[in-house]
Amino acid sequence: MPTASLLLAWQLKDKRILIVGGGDVASGRLESVLAAEALVTLISPRLGLHPKTLNLLHQNPDRVLYRDRDFSSVQDLEGIDMILTAIDDTNVSRYICTLARERRIPINVADVPPLCDFYFGSQIQRGNLQILISTNGQSPKLANIIKRQIESNLPDSVAKAIENVGVLRAKLRERAPGTGGDVGKKRMRWMIDVCNQWSLDDLARLDEQGIERMLDLGWEKGTVISTSEAGIPPSPRFKLPEHTLPVLAGFLAGSLVTCLAFTPRLRR
Amino acid sequence: MPTASLLLAWQLKDKRILIVGGGDVASGRLESVLAAEALVTLISPRLGLHPKTLNLLHQNPDRVLYRDRDFSSVQDLEGIDMILTAIDDTNVSRYICTLARERRIPINVADVPPLCDFYFGSQIQRGNLQILISTNGQSPKLANIIKRQIESNLPDSVAKAIENVGVLRAKLRERAPGTGGDVGKKRMRWMIDVCNQWSLDDLARLDEQGIERMLDLGWEKGTVISTSEAGIPPSPRFKLPEHTLPVLAGFLAGSLVTCLAFTPRLRR
Repeated sequence: MPTASLLLAWQLKDKRILIVGGGDVASGRLESVLAAEALVTLISPRLGLHPKTLNLLHQNPDRVLYRDRDFSSVQDLEGIDMILTAIDDTNVSRYICTLARERRIPINVADVPPLCDFYFGSQIQRGNLQILISTNGQSPKLANIIKRQIESNLPDSVAKAIENVGVLRAKLRERAPGTGGDVGKKRMRWMIDVCNQWSLDDLARLDEQGIERMLDLGWEKGTVISTSEAGIPPSPRFKLPEHTLPVLAGFLAGSLVTCLAFTPRLRR
Repeated sequence: MPTASLLLAWQLKDKRILIVGGGDVASGRLESVLAAEALVTLISPRLGLHPKTLNLLHQNPDRVLYRDRDFSSVQDLEGIDMILTAIDDTNVSRYICTLARERRIPINVADVPPLCDFYFGSQIQRGNLQILISTNGQSPKLANIIKRQIESNLPDSVAKAIENVGVLRAKLRERAPGTGGDVGKKRMRWMIDVCNQWSLDDLARLDEQGIERMLDLGWEKGTVISTSEAGIPPSPRFKLPEHTLPVLAGFLAGSLVTCLAFTPRLRR
């Protein structure tokens, strides 16, 4: 049984990432770190570049420094914050890993778990919501299957709800500034109350005016206002109670069958 | 809009983590990194220790080195792989962050996002399955609400299914050893086929004999066998098709109402 990991969300904006390799796996790595706005150095002979890697290099000339050669020496690690290797030659990977460990630079060697300080997993993104599904290296495919299950159950409103709560929190911090201490705790408690009392759907339907009302009529008075007080119209989608349709279908069928059963008697 | 993070699963086994602070937040951090089997140094005056922190110190004397004092100098960072601070004094936090950045040691300063190289999020664990829910610092509370929704939808069988697939993979690697290349690709493709064709419930019900059969009768012949071929009995839980009960209830009600409607006519 492998050791549990600590799952963390890394801010790579303007961090320097070294990717060694240019194949299919390397292209996935490159895509992931570019999405997090990292600055990348990619080392790989041009011959080994996957079309997807080539594409990403062309699309991000200002964020990727490309070196058309193999990994050469420890100088390639100069100023690097994180290393990702995805090459077939395990000996070179092992050599890079040794250099990285001496310098305490976090490293991931694709497909060789013992040489990894961290693992990638299946990731979901919906606006500011990010979800990582990891099986601790036991089964990437099952991670992917579970990811799809989770994705299909996520409400559509989730990204918008998070965005609106982010705006509300930022405006609240302007009204009641300061880090930590009593005001920090009071802010935190109020935000928790808001999230507990409002549904994701209702939070998603908040507009600028509604946010101001929540602060004016809610925060200022030490309470959480309702959706109607915030001027949010009731949910536009009329929702039948659960099971309405199956019960109705059953009712009609039962009625019909009973009618048919009685018909001969009525004729008599 | 904040920058997207890169979500990663960190292997902290025997890594050296420095925690500065001993309050409520610090106790949560300590618990998380101990679960990942890290070696911890915790710096905090004894007076500021939360009861939960004290408890964890007592339970893990061999994994936590405790210093009964405030953070003193750069020497506290000697040999450290990761830093977590959770203290009220923002100036000290800022000072530690500067020292950490100069040495490229990843750091998280609780409640001060700009001083964080990484964020914590809401985490689910079921055996080897770990799930991280992050809102990129926008709303920890919503992350928690979404976490509970995901948790309630996770099938019970998921941890056991992952464990069994891990065993199957390890045994397959014994039969067909080697890293990368054709055999690696063939192994990976077969494992993907298994996970696609078997449900999580069925994978969870695999036993040792079933795993051997999958390899003997499946892998060796380039195919994936069925549950019955693997000697797995059909799912013990009899499941009614969806909507059976509401339809049935509706049917009875419809029949009853129709009966009552006809009764006066029949009496005539």
